[in-house]
Amino acid sequence: MTLAECLDGERFWSDLQEQAKIGALAPRGLRRLALDDNDNRARRWMIEQGRVLGCQAYHDAMGNIFLRREGREPSLAPLLIGSHLDSQPCAGSYDGTLGVVAGLAVLRTLQERGIEHARPVEVVAWTNEEGARFAPGASGSSWFAGQRDVTSIITACDDDGIRFSDALKRCLAMLEETESTTFRPEPYVPHAFLELHIEQGPVLESLGVPVCAVSDIQGVNWYEIEVSGQANHAGTTPEAARRDAFMGAHALIGALKEVVAQHDDQVRFTIGKFTVAPGSTNTIPQRASFTIDLRHPSQAVLDELDAAFHELAEHHWSGCSASLKVASRVAPVAFDPTLVELADSAVKQYCSSAPQLVSGAFHDAIHLARVCPTAMLFTPCRAGISHHPDEDIERAEAELAVRALVSTVENVLLNVQLTG
Amino acid sequence: MTLAECLDGERFWSDLQEQAKIGALAPRGLRRLALDDNDNRARRWMIEQGRVLGCQAYHDAMGNIFLRREGREPSLAPLLIGSHLDSQPCAGSYDGTLGVVAGLAVLRTLQERGIEHARPVEVVAWTNEEGARFAPGASGSSWFAGQRDVTSIITACDDDGIRFSDALKRCLAMLEETESTTFRPEPYVPHAFLELHIEQGPVLESLGVPVCAVSDIQGVNWYEIEVSGQANHAGTTPEAARRDAFMGAHALIGALKEVVAQHDDQVRFTIGKFTVAPGSTNTIPQRASFTIDLRHPSQAVLDELDAAFHELAEHHWSGCSASLKVASRVAPVAFDPTLVELADSAVKQYCSSAPQLVSGAFHDAIHLARVCPTAMLFTPCRAGISHHPDEDIERAEAELAVRALVSTVENVLLNVQLTG
Repeated sequence: MTLAECLDGERFWSDLQEQAKIGALAPRGLRRLALDDNDNRARRWMIEQGRVLGCQAYHDAMGNIFLRREGREPSLAPLLIGSHLDSQPCAGSYDGTLGVVAGLAVLRTLQERGIEHARPVEVVAWTNEEGARFAPGASGSSWFAGQRDVTSIITACDDDGIRFSDALKRCLAMLEETESTTFRPEPYVPHAFLELHIEQGPVLESLGVPVCAVSDIQGVNWYEIEVSGQANHAGTTPEAARRDAFMGAHALIGALKEVVAQHDDQVRFTIGKFTVAPGSTNTIPQRASFTIDLRHPSQAVLDELDAAFHELAEHHWSGCSASLKVASRVAPVAFDPTLVELADSAVKQYCSSAPQLVSGAFHDAIHLARVCPTAMLFTPCRAGISHHPDEDIERAEAELAVRALVSTVENVLLNVQLTG
Repeated sequence: MTLAECLDGERFWSDLQEQAKIGALAPRGLRRLALDDNDNRARRWMIEQGRVLGCQAYHDAMGNIFLRREGREPSLAPLLIGSHLDSQPCAGSYDGTLGVVAGLAVLRTLQERGIEHARPVEVVAWTNEEGARFAPGASGSSWFAGQRDVTSIITACDDDGIRFSDALKRCLAMLEETESTTFRPEPYVPHAFLELHIEQGPVLESLGVPVCAVSDIQGVNWYEIEVSGQANHAGTTPEAARRDAFMGAHALIGALKEVVAQHDDQVRFTIGKFTVAPGSTNTIPQRASFTIDLRHPSQAVLDELDAAFHELAEHHWSGCSASLKVASRVAPVAFDPTLVELADSAVKQYCSSAPQLVSGAFHDAIHLARVCPTAMLFTPCRAGISHHPDEDIERAEAELAVRALVSTVENVLLNVQLTG
């Protein structure tokens, strides 16, 4: 019987349902905004699971929670597994939490089989992955991986004007009072990081594949575009005298779409916000503002499109000027090839036809990948829906995905030399 | 010396500046929302001008104010001249008020020259033309002309939840306390109605013409369109799986623009509101909603475009369904040809090259035209700007426009038989 076959699927599934009660919404889904009471209760729940299992819990200065199964050689860098417990305001029960509960299932499996391993294994729940309460997200993982400094994180405010620093202080005070966790202020460099997550897209479901390895996270550029015209009376202003910012934006977007269409179908081009001002039925818009979310796995393609977008924004559109601002750029990440292969070969035991996917969404793994060998596993979610109470997974598929994770962990603990 | 030459241009201009102090904004423009304190002060100012001039003031159940210069035959239907005193929230000083002050200038000229006329002449300030506080506008004139009933008007609420009926009650109580005005509950059918207004468009300025007659008011259809898709993750949803409501709306608008472009350049096609939901940079829009303001002087053209718009809305656009709702339709109005010719011949004395314009905007005259011979005069406003503190007129041009109005009034009082 392999280690993966020893996974207690029943227990894994009941853990998953158990955590979903914390911040549950009726009739389904949950709300656990980063560092709110529910999110803190989820931390305590995790620490309690570790205590019962005999794993030491740690928390750090960012409120990240770690459960450690000690290795024979405690000085070795731990293999780290996990994801996050916070959610969007009106979310499903699996985004993030699946990865934490799956990590817990790995620890249970190792424990119950009495497996000894040289290197420690830790399961982590990162603070504020979603960025829904405090933007931007991935606070815990980006800080841990040295990608962002404390000040830039803790000065964020939520919509009620509460500072991240104050919410964090409350969380740390709560953890201070929790006897079974120990403060470990500093990050460390893990041996490797593994994250199981729902796909949040429709591909695996459409292929009928329960789990796959993830090779890359596509890069993302965010743009803010403003088209400036002249407000005027909709009835009295002849066509020739108009500088209609809406029509300017419409024409510019037509040109942007044409440029996008010249590239492969891996480009993701989304205009998610669009506003006009002054916004009156009988007034020609003075200004049209919109965002672009542009994604592709290849930095070269992103750079090409970026140059084309900038060029187009310099033209006049229906007599209006345009300005284009880059709001953020996140470069594509290619995960550690050796670790991806280990994960992929574990996956193939359960599904020989599993593809390797490029992640369309961000994950904590994107930051860990900058400091240690990192890989991800995806399991399908129904109709690709996430960030919504309707988010759903199939128990049988999720169990296979956790078995593939256990198998990957086993491969890593066999001391394979990783690329990173 | 003609009657028009007797106009006291100095006094007309100082009246115009005087009224502009009521609700004045710094550094220029004014705010006189319908039935607010400033609007009521403007009513009192008008009544006081009438009192000093020896004209009887009347007010009706809708708060419309009338100054009457009695005729030799008081039973004849009065010639009515006027416009409105209310404004947009952040408005210029001439939209509407020019027409009322010009009417006052006509009365002064008749009075100072001691002209006797058979038929009474009345100057009117209509209540709530703008519709900025209580939508829709033209309350006073549409009620007076029997186009709308009281209930549909007085049940409107402003943004603070104040009912039109309560604001009107306050206004009428104030008028009740004003000794020099008399309550005259019922509307009457005027002999004719004349309204001088700023053009609110750029045509006269571009032609260098100080005043012109207006032959028509173009018709207007308002539409509300909703495009429905499926919200989804911007990063994880492949092109083929998207039902992007923004992209659907973009494609539909492209098709609407093509249909519009097949017609003459008198079509006015404006998308003044456009919103997407949920409105997040990295979420594919579920819904895109927008308005269309469509105008043309010909009902046949409006009907053709209306049919084409409905047909296009039945298609799918980028996998999204669309729905199109007609929010309102106002048919084009052709003014009384004889009255327009009288106005035009008066205008031609001052500017032989003056065109006859079609009004792009609504005016109180649109309602009066349903019950009596009606015509308008336009005078330029700088850069076509209105509904903005920067709204401006040239004194010399405005004076010529009022002289043309005086001349038109003189023509009408000569008992020309009007078509209506």
